[in-house]
Amino acid sequence: MTNVLVTGGAGFIGSHLCTTLLNGDNIVSLVVIDNFLLGSEKNVSHLLNDSRLILIQHDINDISFLSETLNQYNIDTVFHLAANSDISVSHTSPSVDYLNTFNTTWSVLEAMRNNNCKNLVFASTSAIYGESIDEIDENYGPIHPISHYGAGKLASEAFISSFSYNYNINTWLFRFPNVVGGRSTHGIIYDFLRKLKADSEKLIVLGNGTQEKSYLHVSDLVNGILFCKEKYAERYNTFNVGGLDSINVKRIAEIVIEETKSKQSIHFTGGDRGWIGDVPKVKYNTNKIKNSGWQPALNSEMAIRTTVRELIKEAENDNK
Amino acid sequence: MTNVLVTGGAGFIGSHLCTTLLNGDNIVSLVVIDNFLLGSEKNVSHLLNDSRLILIQHDINDISFLSETLNQYNIDTVFHLAANSDISVSHTSPSVDYLNTFNTTWSVLEAMRNNNCKNLVFASTSAIYGESIDEIDENYGPIHPISHYGAGKLASEAFISSFSYNYNINTWLFRFPNVVGGRSTHGIIYDFLRKLKADSEKLIVLGNGTQEKSYLHVSDLVNGILFCKEKYAERYNTFNVGGLDSINVKRIAEIVIEETKSKQSIHFTGGDRGWIGDVPKVKYNTNKIKNSGWQPALNSEMAIRTTVRELIKEAENDNK
Repeated sequence: MTNVLVTGGAGFIGSHLCTTLLNGDNIVSLVVIDNFLLGSEKNVSHLLNDSRLILIQHDINDISFLSETLNQYNIDTVFHLAANSDISVSHTSPSVDYLNTFNTTWSVLEAMRNNNCKNLVFASTSAIYGESIDEIDENYGPIHPISHYGAGKLASEAFISSFSYNYNINTWLFRFPNVVGGRSTHGIIYDFLRKLKADSEKLIVLGNGTQEKSYLHVSDLVNGILFCKEKYAERYNTFNVGGLDSINVKRIAEIVIEETKSKQSIHFTGGDRGWIGDVPKVKYNTNKIKNSGWQPALNSEMAIRTTVRELIKEAENDNK
Repeated sequence: MTNVLVTGGAGFIGSHLCTTLLNGDNIVSLVVIDNFLLGSEKNVSHLLNDSRLILIQHDINDISFLSETLNQYNIDTVFHLAANSDISVSHTSPSVDYLNTFNTTWSVLEAMRNNNCKNLVFASTSAIYGESIDEIDENYGPIHPISHYGAGKLASEAFISSFSYNYNINTWLFRFPNVVGGRSTHGIIYDFLRKLKADSEKLIVLGNGTQEKSYLHVSDLVNGILFCKEKYAERYNTFNVGGLDSINVKRIAEIVIEETKSKQSIHFTGGDRGWIGDVPKVKYNTNKIKNSGWQPALNSEMAIRTTVRELIKEAENDNK
């Protein structure tokens, strides 16, 4: 039996994680703290009747509040997902990633140390690797992120590493690829759907369409996290999480057009990246998680297609 | 001609760097900002008559003050050395490294961005590598520091990387080994001298004496930094700085006994490390700097011996 805190639990990935956790039978209390900047009560509305859920709107950079909450609910395991997940905007406001991507982690670590809380699951990112051209495994990486989001996550990993060592905190770090699915608030599919609504003639795509990435559906990601947390019991566990394959931007645009039955034609702005800090092609070694016994149910194309359908359905429900 | 800021310029390494910079003839202004926590006015007393030196006691975590200073003196190059350099104490107070090792870097980066300041030299550390057993080169490292000091430096490197990329800041990162020399305020030699003074019978040495590290004399380090900054002109340059060889703790104790003509016998407490977060043996690839044309004048043993003599002389001067 376990008392769990999910930071950012009312966000895109967090809300799916909460759903799956509450489907299990070993949760006594599930505390969600979310500042509702990117998350919302609506994302967890389907869980509000569950008496095990405690939903708190608060900024986790408030260390004393966080410490008191860990103490009050006797939390043994923290899933730290709160972050600024919108990479593309941080070029002009780096302090967003300083505060919401890095400093939130510092705050979680200090609150855990104060309460002798011993288990931490952290949502890291492949963006810590920057523009690597080599295959990278879990233990080694070029320390060269190009986005502030990647920097904030790498900075988080740095202190998680030293806290794990100094205070015997069991840690599972998952470096996420691009994650898609219902309730996402930004990202390529969300952008394309918005653009199709705004422009009835053209779908303007940033870059030349060849940027190729691996996409994982949020349902697969959540299953992978919980599977690996159960299976691996080193003090410090890191996982490069990847999808089964990759897909380029051009194909994503085509799928969105198909699924929405749109008539717009696709136009590319050119260049090998969408925005400053965007990484054209990510290649990193996911053998560890592939050999774990877990594998995603959906490949990149299926993950994209499923997400387009989910987002269309959400928009229809919102308009009802 | 250049206007330079040295953060932590009244500290151990910073004060040596300032001396060498002012020996050159291309400095218009050399601004030192130091909070005098580990540094002191005494460390730069020999430079105070130089009209190019502006010595300011202030905390660089004050971003607006730092921005105004960069603007006022039209700084084009920042040498960011300010940090908590005392690794051994941070286990009980991790916030020291959060504030003084990491957050100072964030503050420098934001002030540089505000002022469009384009050159940054950063004092990083081999401690970012943690307990690696493999040979690591400049571009790849295990992202697994075990001390908060190493974490704070790795977190700094993370944001330096993203700022360098986003705002075209030319960056030279030097991952220092153990640096020794006059004006050092802690570290193994300093500790041994203090212990010899306090105990007339025994020199108690933490660990079993086999911890082996590379030591570089501060004069060599400063020359290496300035040599590489001149020679390498990529936007983002990283260097693993190492000494010529390594030396173990037992040999260091013997040298200190010899140089001080002490009669104490050496006793080891046992175990493979001196304190939590201490790394028994560091092994990393320094080929890049070794192939640069620079090499240290002093090997580890000579660096240790020279430092013992310098610290003895300092103590004698203090007692005059």
